[in-house]
This record gives sequence, C-alpha cells and structure tokens, in this order.
Amino acid sequence: MIYLDNAASTAVRPEVLDEMMQILSKQYGNPSSIHGYGRAAEKTINIARRDVAALIGSLPGEILFTSGGTESNNMAIHGVMKGTGHIVTTSIEHDAVLEPCRMLEKSGHTVTYVTPDKSGIIDVQKITNAITEKTQLVSVMLANNEIGTIQPIEQISQECRKKGILLHTDAVQAVGKMPINVHDLGPDLLSVSSHKINGPKGVGALYVRRGVKLDPIILGGGQEDGMRSGTENVSGIAGFGAACRIAHENLENDTERIMSLKNHLVERICAEISHTTYNGDAERRICGNAHFTFFGVNGEDLIIKLDEYGIAASTGSACSVRTQKASHVLLAMGFSHEQITGSLRLSIGIFNTKDEIDTAVSAIKKAVTELRAVSPLKSKYGF
Amino acid sequence: MIYLDNAASTAVRPEVLDEMMQILSKQYGNPSSIHGYGRAAEKTINIARRDVAALIGSLPGEILFTSGGTESNNMAIHGVMKGTGHIVTTSIEHDAVLEPCRMLEKSGHTVTYVTPDKSGIIDVQKITNAITEKTQLVSVMLANNEIGTIQPIEQISQECRKKGILLHTDAVQAVGKMPINVHDLGPDLLSVSSHKINGPKGVGALYVRRGVKLDPIILGGGQEDGMRSGTENVSGIAGFGAACRIAHENLENDTERIMSLKNHLVERICAEISHTTYNGDAERRICGNAHFTFFGVNGEDLIIKLDEYGIAASTGSACSVRTQKASHVLLAMGFSHEQITGSLRLSIGIFNTKDEIDTAVSAIKKAVTELRAVSPLKSKYGF
Repeated sequence: MIYLDNAASTAVRPEVLDEMMQILSKQYGNPSSIHGYGRAAEKTINIARRDVAALIGSLPGEILFTSGGTESNNMAIHGVMKGTGHIVTTSIEHDAVLEPCRMLEKSGHTVTYVTPDKSGIIDVQKITNAITEKTQLVSVMLANNEIGTIQPIEQISQECRKKGILLHTDAVQAVGKMPINVHDLGPDLLSVSSHKINGPKGVGALYVRRGVKLDPIILGGGQEDGMRSGTENVSGIAGFGAACRIAHENLENDTERIMSLKNHLVERICAEISHTTYNGDAERRICGNAHFTFFGVNGEDLIIKLDEYGIAASTGSACSVRTQKASHVLLAMGFSHEQITGSLRLSIGIFNTKDEIDTAVSAIKKAVTELRAVSPLKSKYGF
Repeated sequence: MIYLDNAASTAVRPEVLDEMMQILSKQYGNPSSIHGYGRAAEKTINIARRDVAALIGSLPGEILFTSGGTESNNMAIHGVMKGTGHIVTTSIEHDAVLEPCRMLEKSGHTVTYVTPDKSGIIDVQKITNAITEKTQLVSVMLANNEIGTIQPIEQISQECRKKGILLHTDAVQAVGKMPINVHDLGPDLLSVSSHKINGPKGVGALYVRRGVKLDPIILGGGQEDGMRSGTENVSGIAGFGAACRIAHENLENDTERIMSLKNHLVERICAEISHTTYNGDAERRICGNAHFTFFGVNGEDLIIKLDEYGIAASTGSACSVRTQKASHVLLAMGFSHEQITGSLRLSIGIFNTKDEIDTAVSAIKKAVTELRAVSPLKSKYGF
C-alpha cells in the first residue's frame, strides 16, 4: 500500500518507536510517585515538554500535555469562555473547534463563523469586523485539514492583541510542516497533535502563553499544574517529544522534499487528467497537501477504487468521512455539489517517495478513467 | 528495585508490549479513514472493546474508550448532571471524583459526602438516607485506592435502582483484582483504567449501561458514538484490550497468589515490627493492598529511606503525595494526625515474588528502626 493520507494520521518514526519501547518496558512508575520509578517518569515528561516547546518556540512551562488535538481544542475553548460571551471563529475549522462552539451556543454564548474566500483563505478584516464587546475568544486554525491553506494568524493575532482578545489557533495540521514560533505567530493558545507528526496517537499538547488563565475541563489529581488531571500517558508523551525533536531537526529538509513531491504530483495530475481542478490557494498552503476535484467522479467511489489499487487516500477529513456529509470546508469556499462530490485529498508525508507518487498517479488516472466511463455526467463532459 | 506501588501504576505485561509494538509499527491508519489502513485500525479497536467488555461482563457497545480513569470519572459525573441537581458521593473517593464534584458545587449543584466507618467501609443506609428528590447521581468507588476496602456497590445499586437514580462506580482499583460482572454488581456507569492492570498509561474506559444517556465533555469528529471525540489512541487501546484479556484469563490464579503474598507480608510486618497497625477492613479488601501505620515514624521519611533501600512504596495516593496534604481518606476514617503521619501503603502486583516480599520486610524493619531511633516520639513509645 502507498500511504497518501498523512493529513489523517502518520506512520510512527522508528526512533519514536524505540523511545516508546524503552519507556513502556522499563519506566512504569507513576510520575506523581516520589520513589525512583516515579521520578524517572517525571523526568521523561519534562524532557518531552522541552522538545515540544522547542518545536514551536515556547517555554517548556507553556506546554500542557493532553490526549490529543481534539482535547486541546476543547480545553482552549471551554477554558476561556465564561458567562455568556462571544466567540469569533471560521466556517472551515475542524469539528473539534466547531462542535465545542455549537455546544457553547446551546448554553447561551454566541458564535460568529467567518467564511473564507474561494481559495480557502480567511480575510483578517472579516475577523476584526466580527469582534464585538462581548468577544472573549477568537479561534482560527493555522492550516486547514482538508485543503491545507495557511491562515494569516500573525496579522489576526496583532488585531486581537490590540483589542485585548485571546486568540486560539488549531495548529494540528501545521506543526512540523512549516516553521512555527509562537512569539512571531502571536496566538495565546495553540493546539498540537502527536500523530500528525509521526508520533503516537492519543497524545497532544496545548500551548498556553504564560499569564493566560484557563479553567480545566478534566479535574482530579492536579497533574499538569492542575490544568489537566489524570496519570500522564508517559510513553505517549515520550514518543510525542521524540517526534517533535526529530521533526524540528529535519524540518527544512523534510518540508522541501515533501513540497517537491507534492509539486510533481500536482503537475502530473493536472497535466494528465482532464476536467480536473487543483483546489485551494496554491502558495499559502502546507507542503504535503494536494486537493483535487475530478469532475464526473464520486470521491467516495474513487477512494474505494484507489484502496483496491493499493493507494490510501481521502475525500477530506477522516473524522467526518464516515458520516458521508458534504465537506463543510468546501461548502464554505462556495464549491458546487458537483465539485465537492468529485474531490480527493492526497497528503504526502516524510516516508513517501517519488516512485510512490508516480505509481499513485497511474492508479488515479486508471481509477478516474474507469469511473468516468460509467459516470452519469459522461455525456455532459464528453469523457 | 522491588516495586510495591502497584496501586499507583503497574508494569506493562510483555504480551501487552508486543501487541502495542505491532500496532505502533504497522497500523498507523486513522480508524475513521475508509481505506485499508483505517479499517485495520477500526478492527483493532473493536477487538479491544470486546476484551474490555469481557473482563467486566458488559456488552462491547457499552464500553467507551477514554484517556484514563480520571477522564472516565469526569465524563460520568459531568455527563449525568443537569441544571442544579444533587450528587451523593463519599468522602473517600479519589480526587478524580471529588474535584469534579467540587466544581459542580461552584456551578450550583449540591453534593453530599458520606463518611465511612473506621475500617473504611461505607454504610449502604447512609447512602440511601442521603438521597433527596434532587439527586441525579450516586458515585461510590468500588475499591479504595489508599486502603483497598471494597464498598457494597451491589446493595447500593439495588437501592439506587429502586429510587430510579443513576449509580456510578470508580472501579479503577478493583478491575482485574476481583471478579466483576456489571450485571450482578449493578452500576449504570463504571470507570476502568488500563495502567492499573498492567496495560499502558493514557487509556481507560467508561462502561455506560445500554440506554443510559450522557452528555459528552470532549466534542469534535464524533468518535466513540459521538460520546468521546478525538482520533483514538489505537496502540494504547490495543494494549489495554490485551491487558484486560490476560487479566481475565489469569484472574483467579493471579488474585490468589497476590493474596497469599499480601497475607505473608502483613503477618510478618505485624509480628516483627512493634507499635504497628494494619489499617482498613481485613476481609472486604482487594487482594494486593496492605496499609500500615508505624507509630513514631514519618511516612514521607519512610518511603524516601525505603527508596534508598531499593523498595518503591507510597504513603497513599500517588496523585496527592507531592502536595503533602494529609490523606483525606484516613481523615474521613477518623485517624489521628499521628496515625496518618506514620502510614505506609504497600501494593502487591502480578510480578512480585515471595523473595521480594521478604527482602522488603527486612528493609522496612531496618528503616522503621532507624527512623524511630531519632523520632521525637521515642520516649513516648519507649522504642
């Protein structure tokens, strides 16, 4: 199988695996215990905290470990919102931001969902205009999970700071795929996920700028400075730390290589398959994301056929693919039903090769041709 | 090091480690993806769900995976409570139950904390008497984490059912250490933790009886039937499942062997160290827990000395040991400050041997003698 679904999840790096095995097999103390086993586990967590912090340019003490990006997003949103306030977010966020917002709407908060332009970019002015006196939080993702577009978080954070409003950014798709320094970027809260950067699933982090006060959502033994209770996932945290450290070391090389593979893929697909569009802003975009519409094709059928041909791909967000609802991201970008139906996301990761890309292009050509041969839109397009 | 802190956390079984390695190295798909990698990950989760369910006699569909026992407890409590209701719980719960209760008190709910008797057992009648017309939930732990006492959940559940009130039990310390069948036991919600039963940290489950409706606390992609969003911790869940399966297969042998080691430990300690009490009900107690007071000794000093002598032990809950506050469990049982100060918890697990117990007894005798020689209470007791 050729794995081109790295936006959904990634293969764990062998070095990460080794690190985790060490911890899982030998370091079974509870980090809260004061004996040697406990202290060793605590030390492991602190090393990982430094590695995560280094990747995004924060202080170690600004990193809270969570069970993943979804929990980080929930924690940021619930942790900030008080009484009946107002949130400004966008209509292209991941459900891990949209669903907590919808829940808050039910409990009396109000939410403004800013829409992107046709290329999937959010206009800073639209965000600024949406801010009211009741606004407590702005939450805008750094990179979109479906179409990979990078949002102008630096400018949004400047506007938020002027108005004294907290900014959260879901950076799950961006961390490890572009250089990030929280001081330059400027958000108060930033979500990270381990399994999107070749670490294990089930662990993530929330960056909380020093001085920002949050209410925790999971209470108990007071771990993570009282902000996130529960015995720490020590092996997962160690693996996450190692993944961040290696991603940091290789960031420039990895992103350049992935970008070049992506460009090769996009060039070949657009040149060799007719009635195809490459969707989303071509420049302001993370390195590994390629998103297409093949007119006259049903994306679900396409990924099932590609699966048969040994290619793992996606129509969009893995998290919503089983619900079969039309992508809210593409809808927000003004895509027609037909454009949405024919969409395919290929996301390239650190382990992909040029040969794999070429094999995938052949498989996609074959699959698209076969599906178009039986498409009800065949005569419309004259395939 | 001899590890006698199995109530705080446990060593991962080698078979569990193998299972996790398989998943971590090969099965990196997102369980929500529809391609082969995704389907394999989904299948892994479903197998684990069956294994967890089998250990507690539930249906697989009644198991929700969480990031651990603390999240399970938070989810049960927040998931049930609506408007301004009333909870009945006990003063010897883990902080992962007490802290969510305290938070609910701040938002207008009321909580009754039922106290145990001197042996650490909760009287069913006291629970029944505490129930009012506003009561929405009763939450009583199955086994206490400090003194190991087993609470009469079966009778409490009968009373709750008569009154139509939901019952949650924190079974983190009990699962895998005694036979549990949720149908006989009768709670509507039951929390389980992986790392207490020789599985990995960072994963747990909440049993939710079929038909019981909860509100989720972490929202997003709708995983776990919409009850717990976030990409699943596939390797952790697989390890947890394997730990449950093996615990189930070995339950009778393991508990008998641990019980016999515990009895040997208690007999020797009580016979060979003067001015010592064995705390908590001796019969209604999980197999591995031994809890002592050594008069004239400071428990903190004792575990630090034992750590030097190669014995990992605890004064009580790992989660609160660093805060240095007096055990709320022992306070609730009516222990004096002196009794609390001199307390030591030794918790035996599946990997301990008789030789280890004998070595530990020698170390404890030595450490207690040394500490008593410089104790301010030396003359009081005539050590």
